[in-house]
Amino acid sequence: MKIQVFVFDGADELDFVAPLEIFRRVAERIPGIDVALVTAESTDLVTTGHGLKLLPDGASDGPADLALVPGGGYVANASHGVRREIERGVLGRAARALHDRGAVVAGVCTGAMVLAAAGMLDNRPATTHHSAIEDLRRTAALVHTHRVVDDGDILTCGGITSGLDLAFWVVERQWGAEMARDVARFMEYTPSRDIYLGKRGNGSGQPPVRVA
Amino acid sequence: MKIQVFVFDGADELDFVAPLEIFRRVAERIPGIDVALVTAESTDLVTTGHGLKLLPDGASDGPADLALVPGGGYVANASHGVRREIERGVLGRAARALHDRGAVVAGVCTGAMVLAAAGMLDNRPATTHHSAIEDLRRTAALVHTHRVVDDGDILTCGGITSGLDLAFWVVERQWGAEMARDVARFMEYTPSRDIYLGKRGNGSGQPPVRVA
Repeated sequence: MKIQVFVFDGADELDFVAPLEIFRRVAERIPGIDVALVTAESTDLVTTGHGLKLLPDGASDGPADLALVPGGGYVANASHGVRREIERGVLGRAARALHDRGAVVAGVCTGAMVLAAAGMLDNRPATTHHSAIEDLRRTAALVHTHRVVDDGDILTCGGITSGLDLAFWVVERQWGAEMARDVARFMEYTPSRDIYLGKRGNGSGQPPVRVA
Repeated sequence: MKIQVFVFDGADELDFVAPLEIFRRVAERIPGIDVALVTAESTDLVTTGHGLKLLPDGASDGPADLALVPGGGYVANASHGVRREIERGVLGRAARALHDRGAVVAGVCTGAMVLAAAGMLDNRPATTHHSAIEDLRRTAALVHTHRVVDDGDILTCGGITSGLDLAFWVVERQWGAEMARDVARFMEYTPSRDIYLGKRGNGSGQPPVRVA
């Protein structure tokens, strides 16, 4: 099972670090899970929204089972971050290509705006950071203001710390409630249950989509 | 005002990234706050507990007003992390030297074990990650199992995500409840109020110690 957590200049630190740590904690417990911190294009150094300088594991080379796109800088209208990534288009195309090849794609915070700009949220239930929600309403997405919105192969969540809840929900639907509970307990966190399940999530009464 | 967030090989990512982001979000709103990600010794590259490769801003060069020591790897008995740092002694000496020169020092998660080993928690109320709490009881620290323990010039907190609560509490006592609330709202987080105030915190009925 291959998980790709995307990062880019101006990405919000918690948006990607929290899911990265949660998925890697699961990977320490279950063999065969590979969690990579990737960029859409090959880059040596990434400087994130609050000045963290980091070396990604490499450029995204699909396919993957799960891809996660963080947000960052959208609300602040920062020169680097989501708005620049939307303008450039490379990140959105990478996420869309992975999705087309079967990946479940998750957008954390204003990462949802990247997915929306790539046309991935058209007629799909979705959410984003509270300060970007009106902008999301102006897209073809069906906005639901829950902490996490699960539409099966597309997941989104609210702002910044909501990424913890999205990641724990992904763990729960993929590896079960006990695994999610164990990792959350170790991390001394109580995941939110404010999760909207779209028709392609298990709002259909069908079992949740499992990645890989 | 100078804030130093320490990092070391094997440090837990959320332990230092969450406070770093919170403090830098405050620094974006209030001029004159410098938040640096530092190492105890000069190092080009740090690899944290779940494989994040990052470039620190530099080595700690005191004095500072606030220093934060994350945990990581203690419970798992990892080859890199808190146990190695305790053995080497450099990180604990750096934290102690900053404290001796007037810094408020905060230990997140098993960062408290570093402070305990440096003798900084002797006869002081403190807490740590739940799986290390019995080890902390075997030191001269006075253990309190709250999410955050504030003893004025020394603060500690529980495991991993407790670092969010410690950081928001530091923001509240330093820059006021409104600032803490604004940043927490933006980050879509509700900070825990499970805070134990020691005699040197405001458990004495005196105003909290303000850094700088």
